[in-house]
Amino acid sequence: MMLTDVEIAQSASMLPIKEIAQKVGLDEDDLELYGKYKAKISLEAINKLKNQEDGKLILVTAINPTPAGEGKTTTMIGLSQALNKLGKKSVVAMREPSLGPCFGVKGGAAGGGYAQVVPMEDINLHFTGDIHAITTANNLIAAMLDNSIQQGNPLDIDTRQIVWKRVVDLNDRALRHIVVGLGGKVNGVPREDGFDISVASEVMAILCLATSLEDLKKRAGRMIVAYNHAGEPVTVDDIKATGAVTLLLKDAIKPNLVQTLDHTPVFVHGGPFANIAHGCNSVMATTLAMKLGDYAITEAGFGADLGAEKFLDIKCRQAGLNPDAVVIVATVRALKMHGGVAKKDLGEENLDALRAGIENLEKHIENIAKYNLPSVVAINAFPTDTEAELQLLNKICQEKGVDVAISKVWEKGADGGIELAEKLLNVLETKEAHFAPIYDLDLPIQEKIRTIVKEIYGGDDVTFTKKVLNKIKKYEAQGLGNLPICVAKTQYSLSDDPTLLGRPSGFKVTINDLIPNTGAGFLVAISGDIMRMPGLPKVPAAVNMDIDEDGKIVGLF
Amino acid sequence: MMLTDVEIAQSASMLPIKEIAQKVGLDEDDLELYGKYKAKISLEAINKLKNQEDGKLILVTAINPTPAGEGKTTTMIGLSQALNKLGKKSVVAMREPSLGPCFGVKGGAAGGGYAQVVPMEDINLHFTGDIHAITTANNLIAAMLDNSIQQGNPLDIDTRQIVWKRVVDLNDRALRHIVVGLGGKVNGVPREDGFDISVASEVMAILCLATSLEDLKKRAGRMIVAYNHAGEPVTVDDIKATGAVTLLLKDAIKPNLVQTLDHTPVFVHGGPFANIAHGCNSVMATTLAMKLGDYAITEAGFGADLGAEKFLDIKCRQAGLNPDAVVIVATVRALKMHGGVAKKDLGEENLDALRAGIENLEKHIENIAKYNLPSVVAINAFPTDTEAELQLLNKICQEKGVDVAISKVWEKGADGGIELAEKLLNVLETKEAHFAPIYDLDLPIQEKIRTIVKEIYGGDDVTFTKKVLNKIKKYEAQGLGNLPICVAKTQYSLSDDPTLLGRPSGFKVTINDLIPNTGAGFLVAISGDIMRMPGLPKVPAAVNMDIDEDGKIVGLF
Repeated sequence: MMLTDVEIAQSASMLPIKEIAQKVGLDEDDLELYGKYKAKISLEAINKLKNQEDGKLILVTAINPTPAGEGKTTTMIGLSQALNKLGKKSVVAMREPSLGPCFGVKGGAAGGGYAQVVPMEDINLHFTGDIHAITTANNLIAAMLDNSIQQGNPLDIDTRQIVWKRVVDLNDRALRHIVVGLGGKVNGVPREDGFDISVASEVMAILCLATSLEDLKKRAGRMIVAYNHAGEPVTVDDIKATGAVTLLLKDAIKPNLVQTLDHTPVFVHGGPFANIAHGCNSVMATTLAMKLGDYAITEAGFGADLGAEKFLDIKCRQAGLNPDAVVIVATVRALKMHGGVAKKDLGEENLDALRAGIENLEKHIENIAKYNLPSVVAINAFPTDTEAELQLLNKICQEKGVDVAISKVWEKGADGGIELAEKLLNVLETKEAHFAPIYDLDLPIQEKIRTIVKEIYGGDDVTFTKKVLNKIKKYEAQGLGNLPICVAKTQYSLSDDPTLLGRPSGFKVTINDLIPNTGAGFLVAISGDIMRMPGLPKVPAAVNMDIDEDGKIVGLF
Repeated sequence: MMLTDVEIAQSASMLPIKEIAQKVGLDEDDLELYGKYKAKISLEAINKLKNQEDGKLILVTAINPTPAGEGKTTTMIGLSQALNKLGKKSVVAMREPSLGPCFGVKGGAAGGGYAQVVPMEDINLHFTGDIHAITTANNLIAAMLDNSIQQGNPLDIDTRQIVWKRVVDLNDRALRHIVVGLGGKVNGVPREDGFDISVASEVMAILCLATSLEDLKKRAGRMIVAYNHAGEPVTVDDIKATGAVTLLLKDAIKPNLVQTLDHTPVFVHGGPFANIAHGCNSVMATTLAMKLGDYAITEAGFGADLGAEKFLDIKCRQAGLNPDAVVIVATVRALKMHGGVAKKDLGEENLDALRAGIENLEKHIENIAKYNLPSVVAINAFPTDTEAELQLLNKICQEKGVDVAISKVWEKGADGGIELAEKLLNVLETKEAHFAPIYDLDLPIQEKIRTIVKEIYGGDDVTFTKKVLNKIKKYEAQGLGNLPICVAKTQYSLSDDPTLLGRPSGFKVTINDLIPNTGAGFLVAISGDIMRMPGLPKVPAAVNMDIDEDGKIVGLF
């Protein structure tokens, strides 16, 4: 009988988190326990490690996702399990899941099969409360902003130019476009407003990019919330919310330690989406994993055009991180979808479609090489994959000078990841990494965006709307021209059109809006029809969730 | 030098929460730790105690609050500290604070001076995440409700008759009256909506009134979210959210254990306001305190007209609890304000004003007697109280047959509460309690409300708006006529007019709305101008909050 992910997770015998911590040299005093199996690492403990040597940093990314699934998180967890099985000290640093997709379509996610992070129910529900703290800090800023306007508007805020949105950590489309402050004089000032999902918020971004509580406070204070009637920015400092916001985030900034099914250490911390935000777990967790492990394995969301690009051009550049190698995850099934096969026909061998679909993978391999980083392709195996399909895939990757490993971690855990781990270790020994971002910060804003679109997406050019062109002028005049770019874009295509699969060419990307996140230190460029608040599907995953009187949970997969 | 509350709390040397648990017979396996100083009690541990004998139950309530402050929570904590000092096993069960007032006017609250519950920073900020879980569960219901309408509206929900509001745990007046679902076809269905503060939500109420996870699930499922076009109720069960909501609350239902400054056990669990909700901590925590302590000391919000009335007529009746005595907290300063003295003149002796103000206290003493419960008056002492004032207060209470004790727990901790503890013990030994609610459930809805207004508030009668009269007819036809009443009313007056201090008479109370909370099992009757979403003041307390790089916190008082 096939067990579901939640059944496998529930049958796991976890070790007390204290014992997991001991494996990487942390003792009980370094931990703040959340139950027996979760702990935050104290800032003092992190400080003590400052001068420790760094382990190698490996990014796990993927092809553009399809409904067939690519299993990037599962492969990453299994890879780390395998490295530990080979006697290497490997630590994972990954994102924490949002409740939005959990109740929407995904029903929870912390790997899969025998490559999971546990306790998966807790990680998928409130975990240690980080995202709730972020939601609250974000919404306190909004409440103080509207209160400042209500109480005589001493900052002369233009209510038509408020850029700070409220957030919830749920998929709730009815909150995308709203009007607040109705009901007369005592109930605020009417204005257009809207909610984003919490993981798209700038508060999430600063938590993930901060290197200390002090850095977090500085970033919080300079976030722009609105403009006054003279067109000047109004910041969190201006509305005097910086201290309270930092206070609300004092525990959320500490990385969370959990374990894999076979008891290897995993940090799960920070959770921005990669389509509508910068898509990487926290700098604090990644650097901690590098201090504690000889190998720090981390991931970035969706395909390499989104997550990896932002990991490299934003996170690594800001934090001074130098990755040593990149793993690109693909499945034969997903590549066949990129080659035009419908989901229902994926069970049949189709070499032509696979050859066409591999172009998507090839583009991502080329892109990683543009950053001067070596890569390994991990094929997340499915029983329907044929020998001929796997051989074709292998051949094409070899031609690109890239190793391919078959990963069976979903089915076999660590044992299924040995081939991948060994090929990765070989790459780390034999190939050099000389990381450099794809664009320079001192290029004009338009050129930076154009570089990403041409070099990474493979597009011909960028169309900027008139609104965006005006904003670019304004931001460059305000001294924001040297910030990196965080593109919000569909994850399904290398272009901004979700229906263009494979390796599209001859397309232009349209930038519809440009939002300065001065605390995070980037400009968010909104492309295509991307929305920062998802909606629920016809039958939300929440409908199938339940817990009985004995605490047994169903419906998280 | 006078230390602030937060300075006293920060200088406390806490014991590991395991050791606090041991004092009441709980071992480490019964706990789910949240750091070193907070723990949830597992449901298995609670189950094991089922057949243990109950300790005595003491409610701490107060006069109507004034800006002079009455110190009810502080007195309650000090009373329990004093009982423990006298060798009695006393356990507190109290509410957890909302972030709304914390960032608004109060700046945090977990007692005061040397009668505090610690770690106060954690208790005042996210604590163990209970209120965030409640907020999320509430808002998931809202998202699933709007999604059901968007996806073809199979339940035929009338968008003009949606009664389920979204919530945030903040004071945010701009969200009181909003329009959602704007922006065209893909962004939901436009309709009027609004946010309440989380602690006023029915999810908070069911969490506080549930006796088990199973009971919680049943209550969640029957909550009414809207009406269909035929006028029939649509419930959480109907939108298939019951399982997911229960799952979100699986940890929030477990009581939280913390400690006083002198290491006596305190449960802090559930936090409905008493003006806009039912105002009592959870039944789970209160019954647990009764199982573990010979004396369980609990509180209910604001004055006895609100918190105590709901504690007795709703919580005790539903949970089958029989309180043994009631402590009524007052201060000379607050009573003088009830007698007409302005806040700036409270430093001067004023026996006439005190005599007039004591009428407020007298009414509450009389009310408690109507429930057939003995009471003790606790005077929370201030340095400005004169001997003549204290004597006058003593004399009038004696005439009412009620003992008065001076409490100095703010200044002296347990030692300052010995007199009160001894007088309470004497009352428990010498006076009998024969608790009976003030109204029968099988009275018509109008009569139940009229009984509360006449018997407890001292009003002449009740005015029901036409809308409410129609609703009463509807609810009685739907079989909801036998529910108890939860009045939403200003806390400042026995009437529904916040300016009528002392013991007003000759007034009528207007009921403007009536909302069935079928999961909680009561009808919320909205009186006067009470609002279920507070606003921030001109200078919010949040403005003064900060945390430095060493983690030192300021601005929580």
